Amino acid sequence: MQTVYILSGPAGVGKSTTSSSLVSALSNSAYISGDDVSHMHVSGRQKPWESNSESSLIWNNILSLTQNFIQSGIDVVIDYVTFPAEAFWLKDKLKGLTENVIYVVLWTDPETLLKRDQLRLPEHQMGERCLSLIKEFKESVINHKYLLDTSLKDVDAIHLVIEEIMNNTQYSIED
Amino acid sequence: MQTVYILSGPAGVGKSTTSSSLVSALSNSAYISGDDVSHMHVSGRQKPWESNSESSLIWNNILSLTQNFIQSGIDVVIDYVTFPAEAFWLKDKLKGLTENVIYVVLWTDPETLLKRDQLRLPEHQMGERCLSLIKEFKESVINHKYLLDTSLKDVDAIHLVIEEIMNNTQYSIED
Repeated sequence: MQTVYILSGPAGVGKSTTSSSLVSALSNSAYISGDDVSHMHVSGRQKPWESNSESSLIWNNILSLTQNFIQSGIDVVIDYVTFPAEAFWLKDKLKGLTENVIYVVLWTDPETLLKRDQLRLPEHQMGERCLSLIKEFKESVINHKYLLDTSLKDVDAIHLVIEEIMNNTQYSIED
Repeated sequence: MQTVYILSGPAGVGKSTTSSSLVSALSNSAYISGDDVSHMHVSGRQKPWESNSESSLIWNNILSLTQNFIQSGIDVVIDYVTFPAEAFWLKDKLKGLTENVIYVVLWTDPETLLKRDQLRLPEHQMGERCLSLIKEFKESVINHKYLLDTSLKDVDAIHLVIEEIMNNTQYSIED
């Protein structure tokens, strides 16, 4: 049975880097960037965090791609700002195809996140949105078993993070 | 009823540039890069032109995304090396959702294509594959109504190409 890994967390926490490493560590796997899927809608696009219909469209696209990959025997790594309700929705929609849905909310101290945001090119800085995401995650991730704090680990230790995600069953979404 | 535009043609003919302009000219539209969809499969991926299962996976992913966009009232521009059989398959799969499927095979003289290929970074050069694609298109595009020769138009005339694609009904796939 294939596995779907949802790598979430606030902007700047290292979702993309971790996702790339994870997808390389798996033998037959696909990488779905939620941001890339989101930006396929070009003209007439709204900000997904301000529009329910835009957000639904993105999640339906992620779901369809995930279903197709699983049906082809391919594991899936989803890299996107995903709140618990969205992860549970995806797990539910995948019933019958796979039961293995892993949800990891990467976490680190807010100071580090804000520092990283300021290092980005001005046009990519999230500013206020970065702070509000941290707050939203704090409020919505009630079950702390999904949190993976990377603040004690440096970049060289990314393989430890990958091992943790692949081997620790605590991140699995149970019915 | 929404419209799906398939912009095809050999490598180097200007698919991406033309697709970007087209998607911007439409008021509510999505851009699907077949190459991006293809590279979502990372580990275990095969070259789609050497593997039927890889090629099917890509087309199923393009189809699913297109269906979701159309259902949300969004026009779709597909930028991918698409042969007539694939375009007709997509048109058929979209029956009931939309009848408006436009198929344009951008074309120019082979010398120009090879020159452009050589201007790419070495790791992006297609070489032999570039030549065989030209041959494959010549053999498979039996109905010349789908061909749009851009060799007489310069870059500044891209808006003329876009107008042609949007207004000339000859590119529409009929049952």
